[in-house]
Amino acid sequence: MLIRNVRPWGGDASDLQILDGRIAAVMPHDPARADDGSSVDGRGRLAMPSFSDVHCHLDSNRVGLPFRPHTGRPGVWGLTMNDREHWREDPPVAERTTALLGRMIERGTTRVRSYAQIDADSGLERFEGVLAAKEAHKDRAEVEIMAFPQAGLLLEKGVPELMDQALASGAAVVGGIDPCTLDKDPVKHLDIVFGLAEKHQAPVDIHLHEPGHLGVFSTDLILERTRALGMQGKVTLSHAYELGNVDEATTRRLIEEFADLDISMATIAPAQQMHALPLAELTRAGVRVGLGEDGQRDYWSPYGNGDMLDRTWQLAFTNRYRPDELIEHCWAVASRGGAAILDPSLERLTSTADRPGVSVGDAADLVLVDGDTVAAAVMDRGTDRTVLRAGRVVADQLQLV
Amino acid sequence: MLIRNVRPWGGDASDLQILDGRIAAVMPHDPARADDGSSVDGRGRLAMPSFSDVHCHLDSNRVGLPFRPHTGRPGVWGLTMNDREHWREDPPVAERTTALLGRMIERGTTRVRSYAQIDADSGLERFEGVLAAKEAHKDRAEVEIMAFPQAGLLLEKGVPELMDQALASGAAVVGGIDPCTLDKDPVKHLDIVFGLAEKHQAPVDIHLHEPGHLGVFSTDLILERTRALGMQGKVTLSHAYELGNVDEATTRRLIEEFADLDISMATIAPAQQMHALPLAELTRAGVRVGLGEDGQRDYWSPYGNGDMLDRTWQLAFTNRYRPDELIEHCWAVASRGGAAILDPSLERLTSTADRPGVSVGDAADLVLVDGDTVAAAVMDRGTDRTVLRAGRVVADQLQLV
Repeated sequence: MLIRNVRPWGGDASDLQILDGRIAAVMPHDPARADDGSSVDGRGRLAMPSFSDVHCHLDSNRVGLPFRPHTGRPGVWGLTMNDREHWREDPPVAERTTALLGRMIERGTTRVRSYAQIDADSGLERFEGVLAAKEAHKDRAEVEIMAFPQAGLLLEKGVPELMDQALASGAAVVGGIDPCTLDKDPVKHLDIVFGLAEKHQAPVDIHLHEPGHLGVFSTDLILERTRALGMQGKVTLSHAYELGNVDEATTRRLIEEFADLDISMATIAPAQQMHALPLAELTRAGVRVGLGEDGQRDYWSPYGNGDMLDRTWQLAFTNRYRPDELIEHCWAVASRGGAAILDPSLERLTSTADRPGVSVGDAADLVLVDGDTVAAAVMDRGTDRTVLRAGRVVADQLQLV
Repeated sequence: MLIRNVRPWGGDASDLQILDGRIAAVMPHDPARADDGSSVDGRGRLAMPSFSDVHCHLDSNRVGLPFRPHTGRPGVWGLTMNDREHWREDPPVAERTTALLGRMIERGTTRVRSYAQIDADSGLERFEGVLAAKEAHKDRAEVEIMAFPQAGLLLEKGVPELMDQALASGAAVVGGIDPCTLDKDPVKHLDIVFGLAEKHQAPVDIHLHEPGHLGVFSTDLILERTRALGMQGKVTLSHAYELGNVDEATTRRLIEEFADLDISMATIAPAQQMHALPLAELTRAGVRVGLGEDGQRDYWSPYGNGDMLDRTWQLAFTNRYRPDELIEHCWAVASRGGAAILDPSLERLTSTADRPGVSVGDAADLVLVDGDTVAAAVMDRGTDRTVLRAGRVVADQLQLV
């Protein structure tokens, strides 16, 4: 099978030969090249690695439903309760998760780490909804589910047991959240999280909103457990909005420790990005960083639309990147950066100039999209996209909805 | 003439009667209402006040041209020189300004304050290019031109004289820039700016990138001159990125003084918005604030696309607004907030709940756009737009380009 007339990472017009779902050859584009009828016409578009959304909450989304005014009270607990009071008014979780995942795939995402909220109110209902979306799209995207204790592990009865059940039933990652500010007992919280990780031999992903040095304190507790349990390479910190908002020596130490323990990071490109650890320095230190869309038009926030290219623009914008190399690095992070979190065997980014994913030997997980250059494509966010997973077209000719 | 079946600010389906370019009546929508054949079919879309872009650089844009990698060196001088070294490689200024202004109108902007760079290199050539765009679209948008000394007033010979010529030839506003960090002689810089303002009886708009307390120092010099020359209501501060990044007492004092001297502000919704003066507090203090798109895909930055609805989303995002009232306030700022800077006789916003511009007596300067609610429209940024100025359709059925 051939993908004809595409420009890998903005390079020369090429034809890609696909064998067994992988790129077997990258050849100069030749309009006269023989074609068995199964080829994809790239029409001169860019061929880019498809997106990996490493931090999204499929189960909370209301994308495509009538818009609902925001009623959340501030803070994690207030927003969690706002969701709890209303989510049963919506169509079933499986319906909403399946619809959003389909939309994400149409726009170029083929790998997902989705949170599935586990709490005393919803039990495993949301987890099962995310499982249904994963199953519905299993040929189009790879979905890894995190069992996520959104309302804490200690505040309500039975949550660790529900987490344990989810991990025995298809959840692949153990989630944790704000060890200090939510459960207010960081040691107990983290002991449960890492205990479940040990029992299920699963990686850990901690959702960290805590400010300044409190966030650093929680992070240090996580680093300590990662080292003690030999979990190098298996721990992700999500958000970590504030780890760059303390003294420079501390943030430098954290980057070094993250590299040393192979802690990965998931960012959602927040408006307060300037308080986070600096992206380019994380990459240069060899720390795996991925991008995610977080909650999308849900009880938490009206933002988000299932489009990782929009979010890639947001990553560039919030980092105030202007040089093309850095803007294009955002696509590398949003695609292969995240992929290396979900599959640590994949090569990681170590330079902002790395442009992986469209070479001989790579899985043909691709987005074809218009753009003079990759930076132009990030700015323009064109809608004429063709999405391939393992060399097979899984979405084409996106119509704006 | 009628605009049928629209929802003003998200309200009930209505028919708007237009007389002499103004809204003469807002009536419940009645499909059977008599029609002389000149009506506009709103198709149930929102009817919103059209946008006012109060801070854009029409003359520097490269929108629609082949994407050019960013070559700017950091800092205002480095970026100015990058532009100077390359801008003559592009099509004539008049062509580029006219094309972008047309695109801005298609997306819903009908009022513009555009910078026209005046410097020793370009003389009046850029100013004349902006003048040509203003003339080309004179029936579709109102354009106010600022004579803007991008490379300073003191560093190169003859700039004040060029500014004087521009102000005698159609420029309506005197620009200034970073009194301390660019010319490095704030008193001389501001004396020239305010001297030209007095001579031409023109308002002043100062482009302020200066950090922290240096920005406050320059601002205080500007406030002093505003008071001494009786220029209340005629001075705008643009950018002022950093006036919220000092001690709280100082930022509070500045907001009070801006209200007292009727200083207005133009923001471009930068990524570092959290360092600026707080938008909602400015509004509540009665300070006029408008939104602008700044440079758009130019030698300074690859961002910007002529779409003020995108920029309105950016204003909400960078302010981390989630409640609907605040998100909708961003549209009020982007439309009537800016309009009150360009025409101080217009009513100003004094509450984040103000929803002006679509009532009996208002000029029929409107955008019709899809949206369940106004906040949903800001999130979705739909492309099916009809734009009216003074009751006349000036753009319709936007096709994505």
